[in-house]
Amino acid sequence: MPSDAPPDRSGARVSPPAFDVGLLSPVSVGHDALVSDEAVLDALVAVEVALVRAYGEVGVAPAAVVADVSATLGWQYEGRGCRGHGIDAVALAEAAVSGGNPVIPLVAELKARVPETARAWVHRGATSQDILDSALMLVAYGSGREVLRNLRRTEAELAGFAREHAEDVAAARTLTQHAVPTTVGLRAAVWLRGVQRAAARLESAVVALPAQLGGAGGTLAAIVETVGADAAARLSEPFADALGLAVPDAPWHTSRWPVTELGDSLVQAIDAVGKIATDVATLSRTEIGELAEGAAGGSSAMPQKRNPAGSVLIRSAAMRAPQLGATLHLASALAADERPDGSWHAEWPTLRELLRLALGATANAARVVGGLSVDRAAVARNLDLTGALIVSERLSLTLVPLIGRARFAALVAEASGGADLADLVRALPEAVDLDVDALVDPAHYLGLAHSYLDSALREPGPQNDSAQNDSAQYDPAQHDNPEVLS
Amino acid sequence: MPSDAPPDRSGARVSPPAFDVGLLSPVSVGHDALVSDEAVLDALVAVEVALVRAYGEVGVAPAAVVADVSATLGWQYEGRGCRGHGIDAVALAEAAVSGGNPVIPLVAELKARVPETARAWVHRGATSQDILDSALMLVAYGSGREVLRNLRRTEAELAGFAREHAEDVAAARTLTQHAVPTTVGLRAAVWLRGVQRAAARLESAVVALPAQLGGAGGTLAAIVETVGADAAARLSEPFADALGLAVPDAPWHTSRWPVTELGDSLVQAIDAVGKIATDVATLSRTEIGELAEGAAGGSSAMPQKRNPAGSVLIRSAAMRAPQLGATLHLASALAADERPDGSWHAEWPTLRELLRLALGATANAARVVGGLSVDRAAVARNLDLTGALIVSERLSLTLVPLIGRARFAALVAEASGGADLADLVRALPEAVDLDVDALVDPAHYLGLAHSYLDSALREPGPQNDSAQNDSAQYDPAQHDNPEVLS
Amino acid sequence: MPSDAPPDRSGARVSPPAFDVGLLSPVSVGHDALVSDEAVLDALVAVEVALVRAYGEVGVAPAAVVADVSATLGWQYEGRGCRGHGIDAVALAEAAVSGGNPVIPLVAELKARVPETARAWVHRGATSQDILDSALMLVAYGSGREVLRNLRRTEAELAGFAREHAEDVAAARTLTQHAVPTTVGLRAAVWLRGVQRAAARLESAVVALPAQLGGAGGTLAAIVETVGADAAARLSEPFADALGLAVPDAPWHTSRWPVTELGDSLVQAIDAVGKIATDVATLSRTEIGELAEGAAGGSSAMPQKRNPAGSVLIRSAAMRAPQLGATLHLASALAADERPDGSWHAEWPTLRELLRLALGATANAARVVGGLSVDRAAVARNLDLTGALIVSERLSLTLVPLIGRARFAALVAEASGGADLADLVRALPEAVDLDVDALVDPAHYLGLAHSYLDSALREPGPQNDSAQNDSAQYDPAQHDNPEVLS
Amino acid sequence: MPSDAPPDRSGARVSPPAFDVGLLSPVSVGHDALVSDEAVLDALVAVEVALVRAYGEVGVAPAAVVADVSATLGWQYEGRGCRGHGIDAVALAEAAVSGGNPVIPLVAELKARVPETARAWVHRGATSQDILDSALMLVAYGSGREVLRNLRRTEAELAGFAREHAEDVAAARTLTQHAVPTTVGLRAAVWLRGVQRAAARLESAVVALPAQLGGAGGTLAAIVETVGADAAARLSEPFADALGLAVPDAPWHTSRWPVTELGDSLVQAIDAVGKIATDVATLSRTEIGELAEGAAGGSSAMPQKRNPAGSVLIRSAAMRAPQLGATLHLASALAADERPDGSWHAEWPTLRELLRLALGATANAARVVGGLSVDRAAVARNLDLTGALIVSERLSLTLVPLIGRARFAALVAEASGGADLADLVRALPEAVDLDVDALVDPAHYLGLAHSYLDSALREPGPQNDSAQNDSAQYDPAQHDNPEVLS
Repeated sequence: MPSDAPPDRSGARVSPPAFDVGLLSPVSVGHDALVSDEAVLDALVAVEVALVRAYGEVGVAPAAVVADVSATLGWQYEGRGCRGHGIDAVALAEAAVSGGNPVIPLVAELKARVPETARAWVHRGATSQDILDSALMLVAYGSGREVLRNLRRTEAELAGFAREHAEDVAAARTLTQHAVPTTVGLRAAVWLRGVQRAAARLESAVVALPAQLGGAGGTLAAIVETVGADAAARLSEPFADALGLAVPDAPWHTSRWPVTELGDSLVQAIDAVGKIATDVATLSRTEIGELAEGAAGGSSAMPQKRNPAGSVLIRSAAMRAPQLGATLHLASALAADERPDGSWHAEWPTLRELLRLALGATANAARVVGGLSVDRAAVARNLDLTGALIVSERLSLTLVPLIGRARFAALVAEASGGADLADLVRALPEAVDLDVDALVDPAHYLGLAHSYLDSALREPGPQNDSAQNDSAQYDPAQHDNPEVLS
Repeated sequence: MPSDAPPDRSGARVSPPAFDVGLLSPVSVGHDALVSDEAVLDALVAVEVALVRAYGEVGVAPAAVVADVSATLGWQYEGRGCRGHGIDAVALAEAAVSGGNPVIPLVAELKARVPETARAWVHRGATSQDILDSALMLVAYGSGREVLRNLRRTEAELAGFAREHAEDVAAARTLTQHAVPTTVGLRAAVWLRGVQRAAARLESAVVALPAQLGGAGGTLAAIVETVGADAAARLSEPFADALGLAVPDAPWHTSRWPVTELGDSLVQAIDAVGKIATDVATLSRTEIGELAEGAAGGSSAMPQKRNPAGSVLIRSAAMRAPQLGATLHLASALAADERPDGSWHAEWPTLRELLRLALGATANAARVVGGLSVDRAAVARNLDLTGALIVSERLSLTLVPLIGRARFAALVAEASGGADLADLVRALPEAVDLDVDALVDPAHYLGLAHSYLDSALREPGPQNDSAQNDSAQYDPAQHDNPEVLS
Repeated sequence: MPSDAPPDRSGARVSPPAFDVGLLSPVSVGHDALVSDEAVLDALVAVEVALVRAYGEVGVAPAAVVADVSATLGWQYEGRGCRGHGIDAVALAEAAVSGGNPVIPLVAELKARVPETARAWVHRGATSQDILDSALMLVAYGSGREVLRNLRRTEAELAGFAREHAEDVAAARTLTQHAVPTTVGLRAAVWLRGVQRAAARLESAVVALPAQLGGAGGTLAAIVETVGADAAARLSEPFADALGLAVPDAPWHTSRWPVTELGDSLVQAIDAVGKIATDVATLSRTEIGELAEGAAGGSSAMPQKRNPAGSVLIRSAAMRAPQLGATLHLASALAADERPDGSWHAEWPTLRELLRLALGATANAARVVGGLSVDRAAVARNLDLTGALIVSERLSLTLVPLIGRARFAALVAEASGGADLADLVRALPEAVDLDVDALVDPAHYLGLAHSYLDSALREPGPQNDSAQNDSAQYDPAQHDNPEVLS
Repeated sequence: MPSDAPPDRSGARVSPPAFDVGLLSPVSVGHDALVSDEAVLDALVAVEVALVRAYGEVGVAPAAVVADVSATLGWQYEGRGCRGHGIDAVALAEAAVSGGNPVIPLVAELKARVPETARAWVHRGATSQDILDSALMLVAYGSGREVLRNLRRTEAELAGFAREHAEDVAAARTLTQHAVPTTVGLRAAVWLRGVQRAAARLESAVVALPAQLGGAGGTLAAIVETVGADAAARLSEPFADALGLAVPDAPWHTSRWPVTELGDSLVQAIDAVGKIATDVATLSRTEIGELAEGAAGGSSAMPQKRNPAGSVLIRSAAMRAPQLGATLHLASALAADERPDGSWHAEWPTLRELLRLALGATANAARVVGGLSVDRAAVARNLDLTGALIVSERLSLTLVPLIGRARFAALVAEASGGADLADLVRALPEAVDLDVDALVDPAHYLGLAHSYLDSALREPGPQNDSAQNDSAQYDPAQHDNPEVLS
């Protein structure tokens, strides 16, 4: 990978400039290091090292080779990728073009770096897809767990918010119009349920992420040739273990459910926080003003603006993610042959961008929810906007039996035109025995709002655990090292 | 719902004609009755009846009302919708426009049909979304189970096919080029794994499909008002039970995971059969000719054509489904307020079309796989096309240590130019002790192909059941009440 | 196409029921007759007739054959499809499955209907794709023009609305927050520009819609064989003319720009009205209340609701259309060989659904805009909500030079906390010479609002026609004039 | 924008690492400099400078200010962005998070760099969206023209290829099966037409790309306030001119056709080369072998592999692009208010990625087509595979009148089973007068193949220019001529 670009003092080339440093992706800036090209490169190297280590585990590669390769290439520990291997991502990207994937030049680079005695063990029996698929799973595992942490933080914030605002009666809105009363807390509990479900599904997907090891055609033939069928059959387990990934039942080179199930759960996670952001943006409108983000965004032109910038960024991710997920499915459905002619390549940047969006959207969601403030006066003022019409459903239940549907409709029409519906009801002879004040009190027409809120808070999850101060409690994937996740 | 359209001689309205009778959807014709507008209408009516029945179960609606409503509206039994209710789908569709959903006019129709004493119990405390969401879940449940049956049939066919062709050595292809040997059976086993996984996930999604009951704003306030909080809290269970749906933890009016998880698993099911169809279409190419569909399609112009028409239809579904799934996610992420201003409506036809595609694609897949024939001569001829180059990976493992990488590369280059690689190897002095015939025999370089095939056949599923000759074994979801499913 | 389905008492087959009568598609009900399966069938028959007529035009088919075929199959006139041919769409859809397209059985049906002497001229030299592609273009032409008429009506309504509200000063909102003043009229003018552009692009796409005539492999070989190269080369023109379509430069069987360009322009049309609907839905919110649809939608539960149902339906289309457009592009990019193995089939229902959505969304847009009412009091009340902060940008231009950036920021902060910004300004010693009343008057800070509105109204289009007072100007039928569109 | 990261010797921060250097995007590596974050930053700065220059042009900003700002910020010349301004993209990306867009911190950076006298003219009257939209248009203009150059080069290569192979008779394939004869040249001519059309549409979109100047709410109020309505109305023209962009009719802040029309035409360009790549990949299959890329890709495991790597990369782009285009349409349709709460932000990275894919896919297409080789022996061998069945359509035209449809079908069936159809025909008594050799010669059944090829080569485009032998004709730089494009 020679290059004419001038080296900087570390020897790395400084040109061409990086394609993407996040300038057009404020939703993910600060949250995307786990899925950067550097992280991918570290993972690619780690997968190659893990293969050598697996050969050691099944007793065919000498311990010295394993040690040498691990040390030379910066093996960290399980699931952590390699560091300090000195491979230049920019040069590797350029060298990847002719063959269409970065593993081909990477293998040459790695062989050049390890001791000659170890060379034959590098990439032995593997194919490019084994390395790239496993590396992307490794990256997905680490970043998927970070997304889970963000979701768990969001849940905890939502639970606190819901509890705090359990008694704040507010207008429920359907098709943009005031409908019936609800509570600010119940709205947050609905958000919470969405996040809980998304987290559960993402956790299932993340712990199922398998290593890939199939060799050139999905038969492991070269590995069988080298080490025999028994050792070959045993190799996947230490290989996956070294990477902290699930042991695959078989190669999945053209059966791409690990990619699509992950993708689906990432989109679902973004949906869940997208719903929150959509409501926060709406309820922050100048005319509504019920919610405000803690750190509102400024404007280059209008000094008074307090934009719900976090919600805007989350929504930008939510509008993009579904189409990325669709591309993964297309790639899965069109995965021809034993390695497809385009659809596999289409997965790489798409899955990575989806991980990036999930990382950014969920991190921002935890922050936005954590800083969310409620203007109770605005909530009450809005609730009162239509007077007793907000409980017209309730009034119809009580009054239609007394005065008939036609007269009730006339009352509502009169009230919609500006009259005070409560007064109109009070004036009804048939209503003389009714406690109209109680009847039109929105706080008396909340149905199961409290019950639904309580049950959401009782769902399994960190925010409801009695031992929640024990950080192990929040461990999203108990099979994992708690330090890693908490 | 009066109409000015002229009646035909049977009294049925003849105008407007049906929008879609399947003319542009050959993939689903014959497989889509469970998701037609008639089926949706039957489900809508059934949901309204189920609500009345639930009121009966919790002890508040009189038994006579329950019986009258059930009888008048054609209640069948659990999960089966209503039949013979006499509601006209075309007229209902027209009446749905002004309010934007068909439940509003449906309620009027239903109230007009039931005895006056029962009228107040119809739609009591419910909102349009309760009825429409529950009806779509009911439709999804029935059709999702049919998709499962199709997948189970496909699995059974694939298992038989894989067994039959376990020893047929074939070329594995990567990036369109011959790579290494594999077997026809292993290829089918990879297909099988994809279908198994998709079926498992779809089954999870289908059994989780919940009824929806939230009332106007997701609080059940009107129901609490009518029957008290206790009965209201108990109402969801008999309501869901009557429909054969899961009991919801809470209303999910704006937390749309039931829709997106179902959608994702439908897309995954279509992906799995799309992969099969993609390979069948490729391997049916005139030049390849390894596979042929049992009932090939004809041509309006070319009498000799034997098109892989089933695979073409399946692929057409596979190219459409992912974008439909994306729309469901968008609708979920943008589900504003307590009922959104557009995204809910976007779900209806999208989910239905996805169900239709899944029904058609999987039914066609079972048929295509069931009729698939292998031209063993073509398989062998193709495998032989590049001579010993098909095992060049193996040769490199053996020869590079003997003759070095450069000389080996020269051999491969010479063979790529037309020379017989086996002969070139035989001519090597260093190869004098090698059994070159065995070395270049593709059947001796299959790695774990048999093992992977066997393990796929051992996966839980009907095709591996000891009693598999009993056709009842292929019952799609043996965990289910057989009456319910068959 | 025999059928075993039991006849109902009228003799018509009762099974299977129509798949889709619009129950789940309220946005398009009443607007989709031009793209129904019946319309597609009429177009398919018309294309076959047009081919016979073209043979007549180039002098090879006898006039009697042309007359017989035209009469028997219900030829109407140019571009209008055939009627009364008696082909049953349901039976044809069923017969289409085995070969994967409806043209194969259709040809048999047509040959059975025409006189024996004409039989050899039916479908002569054509392939299924010629007929189906041309028929879809014919359907697209007719419905595309109807979409154009809807857009022109929307433009006319928008122009009137914009003029009427040119002086209604309102808050412009960015990122959900009040920003600076604008006018209700300018907002409508922005909507108008979007519709104008979309209409112009759709018109370009519609008039370019070509007939398809390529024969089995895109060479017209069978036609050359039958009538010679000269007549074959001349055949496309009368064929296209008979259908009112553009004459193709060459067959476009695998160069699918006619489909994607049409699709793109339909999506753009839906985008344009989707933007309007999005703003109408927002500005109709209970708290905002600046706009109301003329015929608001009701609710099954809440008698007071006045939902912006038209906008909701338009938005539901706008959330679905882009993904349909994406499917068309995928099908175009993956159009393998001389007829692809799936992607062509994926186009048919997708293009049709996109036409359906465009018809429905634009028809609803014309209706919604036509009925839109402005609550001027609400507009003014909202504009006043933040006091002089709505002109903080203006104040900063005037005051920062006088009092510096820091003091100005302090003023804004104080005002954001509740103080009256105008009073704060009046109290500034440095502002003693300022006409603060004028300075904080939003009507004095409208920039080029009037100018931009005027220029939008001057754009070419029906609403700006010199004879625009003549309501006939807006008559959709004007675009039926062939000169206008072809 | 302080940072704790260690500076490298140039003073630039070296951490965090670049998110994306192209490692997962081999299709675009080497072709994407025009759309990198650095290029976007250069464009952002250029837009701010262009605004100051426009103020100078309309006579309100002093010439010295214009000169100072231009010089300080590295103004190059029209449409070329600014260079050497010293703004750090990484730091700017980080600073962009809180407000949600990079312009807010950029303005502060720029003001700090220009002389104090110029400070007030920087960003004067503009809003963030003006700068970001205009910068993305500037980036799109430059990169769109590069895509055009790539398409023109592809056209030139295709024209040469089509001419060279005009007489190579080959099998046309439909639904994967041999259909009728065609020529290699005609296939390339069909590709060419697709590219020509895409280029024409892209050129239209590129030359229409407008600058954006609307101020905070789309009224230019702050600019009117500063310089008066006349100068404000005149400002857009010199502003757009300075950037080499089209002068906007009005602000298009929420009327996003410039983005979607560009996006659509980029997707169409990728479709056109995706179709080529799909055919090249198919026709390169080991069993087909009619085409080979000049520089085939290697393999990490199989030394003999000659993968169509360029086509694979192009196809990977073609499977991703449509969904990116869909996101742009969604953002357009959902562009609420006078600046939307998420959809605008969703556009930025999506449009940029689409430009990147278009740059990479079209550059690779030009290279792939330029290096494409035809194996004439394989073409002929494949054409002969089904014997005279390849002309069965022709035979049916001749023989059915002689022997009837039933006997002809029997012949075809016999031939499909292995008999030689030509011999069967020769044995027919009715065929005694036929020249069977000529009749079954595929070269005699090419219809209008040559004519269609010729007409494609006559389409307007560089490859058909009278001076086409002059290689300078294909010089991409010709399109840099402002007359050609602007």
